[in-house]
Amino acid sequence: MTMLPSPYTTLDLEGVRTFLASLPAIAARLGGTPEAWQVREVSDGNLNMVFLAHGPHGGVCLKQALPHVRVDPSWKMPLDRTFFEAAYLRAIFPHVPDLTTECLHFDPHQFILIVPALSEHTVLRTALMAGTFYPSVAAHVGEFVARSTFATSLLAEPFETVMNRRICFARNQTLTRITVDLVLTDPYHDHPRNHWADPHLTSIVAALRASAAVQARIDSLRLRFLSTPQALLHGDLHTGSVMTTGADTRIIDGEFATFGPIGFDAGLFIGNLILNFFATPDRAAQSVHLDMIQTFWTTFKKQFLSLWQNRETAQDRSELYYATTDKSTQNFEKSLFMNEIFHDMCGFCATEIIRRIIGYAHVADFTILADPSTRMERQKAALLFAKDCLEQKKPLKSLADFLELLQQNMSAR
Amino acid sequence: MTMLPSPYTTLDLEGVRTFLASLPAIAARLGGTPEAWQVREVSDGNLNMVFLAHGPHGGVCLKQALPHVRVDPSWKMPLDRTFFEAAYLRAIFPHVPDLTTECLHFDPHQFILIVPALSEHTVLRTALMAGTFYPSVAAHVGEFVARSTFATSLLAEPFETVMNRRICFARNQTLTRITVDLVLTDPYHDHPRNHWADPHLTSIVAALRASAAVQARIDSLRLRFLSTPQALLHGDLHTGSVMTTGADTRIIDGEFATFGPIGFDAGLFIGNLILNFFATPDRAAQSVHLDMIQTFWTTFKKQFLSLWQNRETAQDRSELYYATTDKSTQNFEKSLFMNEIFHDMCGFCATEIIRRIIGYAHVADFTILADPSTRMERQKAALLFAKDCLEQKKPLKSLADFLELLQQNMSAR
Ligand SMILES: Nc1ncnc2c1ncn2[C@@H]1O[C@H](COP(=O)(O)OP(=O)(O)OP(=O)(O)O)[C@@H](O)[C@H]1O
Ligand SMILES: Nc1ncnc2c1ncn2[C@@H]1O[C@H](COP(=O)(O)OP(=O)(O)OP(=O)(O)O)[C@@H](O)[C@H]1O
Repeated sequence: MTMLPSPYTTLDLEGVRTFLASLPAIAARLGGTPEAWQVREVSDGNLNMVFLAHGPHGGVCLKQALPHVRVDPSWKMPLDRTFFEAAYLRAIFPHVPDLTTECLHFDPHQFILIVPALSEHTVLRTALMAGTFYPSVAAHVGEFVARSTFATSLLAEPFETVMNRRICFARNQTLTRITVDLVLTDPYHDHPRNHWADPHLTSIVAALRASAAVQARIDSLRLRFLSTPQALLHGDLHTGSVMTTGADTRIIDGEFATFGPIGFDAGLFIGNLILNFFATPDRAAQSVHLDMIQTFWTTFKKQFLSLWQNRETAQDRSELYYATTDKSTQNFEKSLFMNEIFHDMCGFCATEIIRRIIGYAHVADFTILADPSTRMERQKAALLFAKDCLEQKKPLKSLADFLELLQQNMSAR
Repeated sequence: MTMLPSPYTTLDLEGVRTFLASLPAIAARLGGTPEAWQVREVSDGNLNMVFLAHGPHGGVCLKQALPHVRVDPSWKMPLDRTFFEAAYLRAIFPHVPDLTTECLHFDPHQFILIVPALSEHTVLRTALMAGTFYPSVAAHVGEFVARSTFATSLLAEPFETVMNRRICFARNQTLTRITVDLVLTDPYHDHPRNHWADPHLTSIVAALRASAAVQARIDSLRLRFLSTPQALLHGDLHTGSVMTTGADTRIIDGEFATFGPIGFDAGLFIGNLILNFFATPDRAAQSVHLDMIQTFWTTFKKQFLSLWQNRETAQDRSELYYATTDKSTQNFEKSLFMNEIFHDMCGFCATEIIRRIIGYAHVADFTILADPSTRMERQKAALLFAKDCLEQKKPLKSLADFLELLQQNMSAR
């Protein structure tokens, strides 16, 4: 008798229990009997069902794709996104085992992914909104971006390995389409998915759309996003994709994984720090954000360059970059590479800020500002900062310049 | 009864006749009876077996992959390269039906590709070496590069279409490996595959390898080749891949097809014109080469920009580039795009010149210079021009600057 895989069904709490019980390795990790497991739903994102299950020995997190957007059942969506999240974890986990979760199980028929539960961890956005600033989390995320992107780039691997991975992730088109439309297109022209809270923002939206410099930069960023496969990206690295205890940080939710410019991951992360920066009521607390951005970039850069350096002296280095042995040439090449990432980061950071205020999916951060006019003023300042970023005639030279631009836009309010 | 496909066998002349006779559409195109067909071998490249067959109605060209490099049976090679040549023709033929050959048949078991025979056409390299300069051929190749690359780029198609094509051609790894190694790596360090005729060239080879600027540019070109999938490239657009009657020009031999920077196709083509320029005994004839390069670039640019313009006004334009309606912004974006292609063209042109003189596969052009010392002087001049190109601190601004550099290097001899 051949066992046919069961057809896809969306699991409820009891379905989750039964499913976990059917997997011996997972059941053993939880311990005890299935009836005694605590199972609860924790879905809070836009797309998927997420459950946590705990037993006497440990806990797991089960994520299942729905055939539609979770928060909008009329928006149909293929189920395969969980496949790409599992593939992403498998590709990067060996390089960042301390900074993400392991794929414990993936079911290709039910589109279910199981990873260890992060029971002590808080979502970074939630922490920031509560005014809790963990000093090390920005360094952790910098490490994560450096190690996950370096390892999947042509600097670390022969191109055949890279191309085979690109072949896999080039199929993640539904979610890439969402990024192209929601992040890099819709906010820049009239579209029913756009919305913003306060009519006072409308004039800034109009100014963004009227700016030839903004439009040109957006077109070029969209093109770069789609045709610069430097490394495997997380693809949705906002502060809701980071869970931390302060001492331990894990990146979750890699279903948007795609090959692209490294500055995209970096830009999304600092873009979300900056959204929180503008949403923070207590101005004194805002220096923490500047420190976090500084720490993130410094750590990323240091770690990426040190991985590159090790590659040069390693016996099994990739075939790239062995033409040059001259130190100053190597450093020149590296600085060009870093400048390119930095320039992309500034651009994609700006697009993230804009789309999170006037696009389809906003961030919760501004809700902590109770006074509607303060909230509007801060959103305005954030948008003007993003506009400034996109309108730079020449790439900003350094992080110091970037942070200065940020502070100017904040003080103007 | 299931017909199993016959296992792969390398066809001889009679095998070709039998194979063609088994295909009704091909047999009809040739006309008459198979016994009366004229079949001959015309293989002159490095890799494959090529046959021409003529009947009373018409002719076809049959190309079959060998399990090794034709000119070096010890160099084993997978057969699937013919698949990629067929796939390339299928992708681009609708856009350049007058500038390439149609794929009439592809056999995935025998790795055989059949296209119409070009009976009146001469290989461009052969014509140039004979001192025959067709005035229109450079314009034809410029048209070809413009139309084939534009049509397969993100400017013309939604990204899903582009990505699905990238998935297909990202499998063409054996031939991409050859480009990476033979064109973009080996010449720049000691490798047994390198060779050059005259020991007087050795000092220039040493100077190339000692130049930090050259090494840095080569590293960056290699990385760009592998991570800038702007469009589907021919991948091997030298003057041996162009057949012409003067009035009619066809691009053949697209087995190296890969997604990459458009400047790669352009650079290979003008690199081979420049090799012939340096190999031309009659200095008076050399102004023709300058005209050809000028015509190629001008035609390419004009045609590419006009396709882009049509996309902007078309109803079904791709989703890209609709943010901007401001004319001057559009022109600014276009000029940036063109500058990037131009800069890539200059770099890849230089790598082609270098590898064709000191790498594995040389060009025949210099054999028309009977005097060994003249030949050596001209090869030296070509290498020094290529070195100059690679060492430019800032991108050359215009084709005029490029041509001036070329003439300076020629007059220095
Ligand atoms: N491994 C885990 N351990 C504990 N909680 C988790 C884990 N993974 C996710 N969660 C919780 O579930 C929530 C939703 O997870 P996730 O962000 O992966 O879902 P999503 O629907 O894909 O979200 P999005 O719409 O942002 O893509 C998280 O915000 C977090 O609170
Ligand atoms: N359609 C055609 N009609 C007539 N002759 C052709 C045609 N295609 C190819 N030829 C002849 O066959 C020769 C070899 O063809 P082609 O360049 O495609 O082979 P190849 O082995 O792949 O070469 P390379 O090593 O350069 O890749 C050409 O130089 C040309 O003389």
